[in-house]
Amino acid sequence: MRVRIEGQTLDLLAVQMEDYIVTMIDQRWLPFKFELRRLTSWQDTVKAIKDLVTRGAGSVGVAGAFAMAQAAHEIQTTLVLEFNHLFQEAAKVILSARPTAVTLSAAVYACLSAAEKGTTIAEKQANVDRVANQILASDISASQAMGKHGSALLKPQSRVLTHCNTGGLGIQDHGSALSVIRQAYEIGNLALVYVSETRPWLQGSRLTTWELQQYEIPHQLLVDSACGHLFRKGVVDAVIVGADRIVANGDVANKIGTYEKALLAHVHNVPFYVAAPLSTFDFDISTGDQIPIEERPAKEVRTVVGRLPNGGIGPVQVAPDRTEALNPVFDVTPARYVTGFITEKGVLTKIKPKQISKFVRKMG
Amino acid sequence: MRVRIEGQTLDLLAVQMEDYIVTMIDQRWLPFKFELRRLTSWQDTVKAIKDLVTRGAGSVGVAGAFAMAQAAHEIQTTLVLEFNHLFQEAAKVILSARPTAVTLSAAVYACLSAAEKGTTIAEKQANVDRVANQILASDISASQAMGKHGSALLKPQSRVLTHCNTGGLGIQDHGSALSVIRQAYEIGNLALVYVSETRPWLQGSRLTTWELQQYEIPHQLLVDSACGHLFRKGVVDAVIVGADRIVANGDVANKIGTYEKALLAHVHNVPFYVAAPLSTFDFDISTGDQIPIEERPAKEVRTVVGRLPNGGIGPVQVAPDRTEALNPVFDVTPARYVTGFITEKGVLTKIKPKQISKFVRKMG
Repeated sequence: MRVRIEGQTLDLLAVQMEDYIVTMIDQRWLPFKFELRRLTSWQDTVKAIKDLVTRGAGSVGVAGAFAMAQAAHEIQTTLVLEFNHLFQEAAKVILSARPTAVTLSAAVYACLSAAEKGTTIAEKQANVDRVANQILASDISASQAMGKHGSALLKPQSRVLTHCNTGGLGIQDHGSALSVIRQAYEIGNLALVYVSETRPWLQGSRLTTWELQQYEIPHQLLVDSACGHLFRKGVVDAVIVGADRIVANGDVANKIGTYEKALLAHVHNVPFYVAAPLSTFDFDISTGDQIPIEERPAKEVRTVVGRLPNGGIGPVQVAPDRTEALNPVFDVTPARYVTGFITEKGVLTKIKPKQISKFVRKMG
Repeated sequence: MRVRIEGQTLDLLAVQMEDYIVTMIDQRWLPFKFELRRLTSWQDTVKAIKDLVTRGAGSVGVAGAFAMAQAAHEIQTTLVLEFNHLFQEAAKVILSARPTAVTLSAAVYACLSAAEKGTTIAEKQANVDRVANQILASDISASQAMGKHGSALLKPQSRVLTHCNTGGLGIQDHGSALSVIRQAYEIGNLALVYVSETRPWLQGSRLTTWELQQYEIPHQLLVDSACGHLFRKGVVDAVIVGADRIVANGDVANKIGTYEKALLAHVHNVPFYVAAPLSTFDFDISTGDQIPIEERPAKEVRTVVGRLPNGGIGPVQVAPDRTEALNPVFDVTPARYVTGFITEKGVLTKIKPKQISKFVRKMG
């Protein structure tokens, strides 16, 4: 992704590795402070994942894979059996950094099985390096491909509404929905992005606006509940969001607030697209009603984090002490409101259980 | 309204007057600091209206009427002609405190015409006092009546979603929608209130939660875009909101975010009620599309005001500097999504232009 800083334009990834040094864009203080973290040991990388220096499905997976590569490289032994033991111990620690992140566990297990296929330590190290780099490369190509397929769907000069952050900070190199938006802008199919702020964490205000600024893509921020007004005014030509999970019948779990935007799009005859890699599809769950919805602490609703008047980053309290609050992190959008799934292998517009499983089996 | 403070329970109005001293609940620092302002001259009262010490259609109108009564009382002359002149000069200043508040201008003109009807200065003063007190009394009885009519509509133990602040801080003594909620709770027709936070000003988090706490009415706060999730879970039995303007065909202008809640209620077969006094109906506008929608500064979207870590009240910045933002303050809910209008004269459920004008003419 492009980062413009102090007059310079850099081409960076949210997470990258060179000579076993991992570098992350520190997302915790964006958009107010841009900082890169250099992580010189696998333990440092684990701590950074845990401390949310990086976030987003893709970035967490890639960071985990790089931590595995660092670990394989840093283990001090010439004995294969001892290497295996120490590498597995490291894997456990890396897994525990974000216990529920599916991409992290997938990356760690892929690296473990790559190591098993080597006979010597050097072979094992080389195998892990290769798999870690493949994970990154496959994210980059999926992001690029989603952008290509999705951008062609939009009419010239479209005004697109998006929600949450679905850019290069979360999936290398350009994200999912935001990759579509970026490529659409390049080919003249996008005139303006409406960014809903995405309370309670404000990924829209803090991260999506920042990423769009890097590419100088015209955008306007709005509070989440102003979206309905835009639809009534007739100024939204398409909605594009990401997805956390897409289940067998096509129902979509995504950031809280997605469902309302899908319903608005449906009622106002505006296409609603979900951009997500094939790895997002989960056929073990048949309908959206069965998706467990994470509820987070009430405090996140009672406070808002931002740049304080003194220049520091911190919370302001916006509700009385101890106010009870509900904080569901995701909601479920019924398949009938989805116009199309934009994947790295193409766009699926027949949103029926059979068509979805056929498409994913054929392409995945 | 009831205010519980330091173990005491007080019965207060947001704006009241005794011996020509106006007392206001200072809404600017609620819920973090409860303070009463004593305003001993009409100029002080005007400044307080201007500084947003009080807000809300009813409160601004009552405060304006009291400022007129203070002015009539404070004018230092024994000459009727000079009195008339000075009183009209004061009226101009009072009107300018909130130039677009319809209730303020209605109150000021009512007091001016009351003064004209007196022959002596003493008569004029008495007339203004009487009209000012009538304005307050009529708000109080309308609030009470809306509560009575609306609370009877709800089924026992209903779970009700509301938006923005529609309580006693805005219309004496108990507001519009919040008056319905309070009386419903008293008669066992309400179990729980869902309060949407209402960005950008957070009237839900800051004021509605505070008012509900005073009456110990069970409530849960949520971010605006979590409402859709509640409807999908089937835990909302009714929606009750206020209104800024209801036009001839029944379309409703109200706080931004109202439209989305009405649409959700419609799709999920949940009744959607609008509680508003008859004075809210405006037959000069035929449909919602003709209602001018105020757009406010982008800064309100880029910042959030709350209690800072150092205990002060101030803003945090939540988006990059100079991010362009849209900030429409109201949206329009089509009449077809409204189940009923709860007024001080009863409930209107036939939401057609003819029925609305017949009802308002008959009752108003």
